Amino acid sequence: LIRVNTLSERWQAEVYIKCEQFQPIGAFKLRGASNFALQLKKGAKALVTHSSGNHAQAVAFMGRQLGIPAHVVMPSNSNKKKIENAKKWGAEVHLCEPTFESRLSTAEALAEQFDAVIIPPFDHEWIVEGQATCAMEILYDMPEVDIICAPLGGGGLLAGTALAAAYFGKDVQVMGAEPANAADGYEGLKRGERITSFTPNTVADGLRTTVGVVPFEVLKDLDIEVLLAEEDAIIPWMKRMWDYSKTLIEPSCAVPFAAMDACPERWKGKRIAIIVTGGNVDIDQLF
Amino acid sequence: LIRVNTLSERWQAEVYIKCEQFQPIGAFKLRGASNFALQLKKGAKALVTHSSGNHAQAVAFMGRQLGIPAHVVMPSNSNKKKIENAKKWGAEVHLCEPTFESRLSTAEALAEQFDAVIIPPFDHEWIVEGQATCAMEILYDMPEVDIICAPLGGGGLLAGTALAAAYFGKDVQVMGAEPANAADGYEGLKRGERITSFTPNTVADGLRTTVGVVPFEVLKDLDIEVLLAEEDAIIPWMKRMWDYSKTLIEPSCAVPFAAMDACPERWKGKRIAIIVTGGNVDIDQLF
Repeated sequence: LIRVNTLSERWQAEVYIKCEQFQPIGAFKLRGASNFALQLKKGAKALVTHSSGNHAQAVAFMGRQLGIPAHVVMPSNSNKKKIENAKKWGAEVHLCEPTFESRLSTAEALAEQFDAVIIPPFDHEWIVEGQATCAMEILYDMPEVDIICAPLGGGGLLAGTALAAAYFGKDVQVMGAEPANAADGYEGLKRGERITSFTPNTVADGLRTTVGVVPFEVLKDLDIEVLLAEEDAIIPWMKRMWDYSKTLIEPSCAVPFAAMDACPERWKGKRIAIIVTGGNVDIDQLF
Repeated sequence: LIRVNTLSERWQAEVYIKCEQFQPIGAFKLRGASNFALQLKKGAKALVTHSSGNHAQAVAFMGRQLGIPAHVVMPSNSNKKKIENAKKWGAEVHLCEPTFESRLSTAEALAEQFDAVIIPPFDHEWIVEGQATCAMEILYDMPEVDIICAPLGGGGLLAGTALAAAYFGKDVQVMGAEPANAADGYEGLKRGERITSFTPNTVADGLRTTVGVVPFEVLKDLDIEVLLAEEDAIIPWMKRMWDYSKTLIEPSCAVPFAAMDACPERWKGKRIAIIVTGGNVDIDQLF
């Protein structure tokens, strides 16, 4: 946890960030992927996943750690940097048509071919359990925290955070943050029913996914509030947080800051931990 | 200290960075400036300095901490961001002609006017002593470190690092790193005589200064080796370290990495701590 002085002054609060960009793969996704891989009773001969983002790196990294092959299915229009990232840890990348159906069928074919286990990105209790270790660490380091806020995409991290707070916290409020332009979680929780079809339109590429079945039930049961970030505020908040925290944060990580800054009076006097989920920015593209 | 995995693999070493960008002002300069201000037996009624960089912020911050006015003299061609940074902590900024003589005379006039103390940026034993606390912390966290490397500009930090290692370390080698295009320290130590006149030509704006009298004597006495970084390697290494460390580092901080990467075989199997001196990058200018 790093204290962010400028933000603390701005909100008249004690604001800390939990720095998941410092994970070996530059993002929190390793928590869930490693828990899933290590829960397999008989182990696995190989790992398979379909993802164009940080989850692909997590599965690739776990393959290397366990000394077994990792196969990553990525849409053929993925950018070079993301393909490179998956290859960095020794995974074999399989390009497929850029549709969800093609990703799924390619992954299933590979799983059969290599007698491999498919590691899902978020919609599984082992993934939620793994992501929960992030909030467990926050509660260990700062037991007196009032609020923990995490971005909401597929929901694995937020559901894990909510469970960790329920089991190990005392009076900790957990909040999610979603782009207003990808508010399926917010809408679904309001209606009490998971939204299965929507078209996200946000720069926060990690949060375009639909909330999964397992995470949705947890968020609904624990009555988790979701804040919304206006689309226009996301990139300015990413840049601001680079300056305030001197760390790299991805566009998706800016969403909690943008959402919370829309109602600063709510945070006055509180001790707040915000989970910065990753720092995998394409730096060459910036310059 | 944060372990940098990719760099550790690249050099087959254990490479850590000491993250001075996380200081309240985003740079190490606070260590020397605070030690200087706190050593004043009678205290001070006001603080004055001339600087366009991180030292200005350090003095401004100390003024606020001590509840006394801080006056910062800056050349009239300073960029807006740097002026803003000094004002952020409540300092009064006085613009002067962009010559060293004008900076000095304006500072001296202000010191007389406000009965203020001038805090020098590096050439004073109290400054060196303050900067030494950085390496003391490294030695406390990692007593078994083999090499500590720091950039060399005015020499306050490197001299402090060398003294801390001599007093508190066992078998720790301290190294400096300079841009090849601002190698007055390297040349001066080779000749055994401080170079007083040279024209730096480097993107590493924090390292354009001439090594001071006090730091030079320390570096000479302790026989500190200085490595050189080719100019072309500095910005690529800054970008690489953003990616490797997920933290923001200034161009000046890239110099040790660029210099050390020119002779990777020397670092094999070593435990290395590199001081990242600051992260005050103008982010808006990047995008």
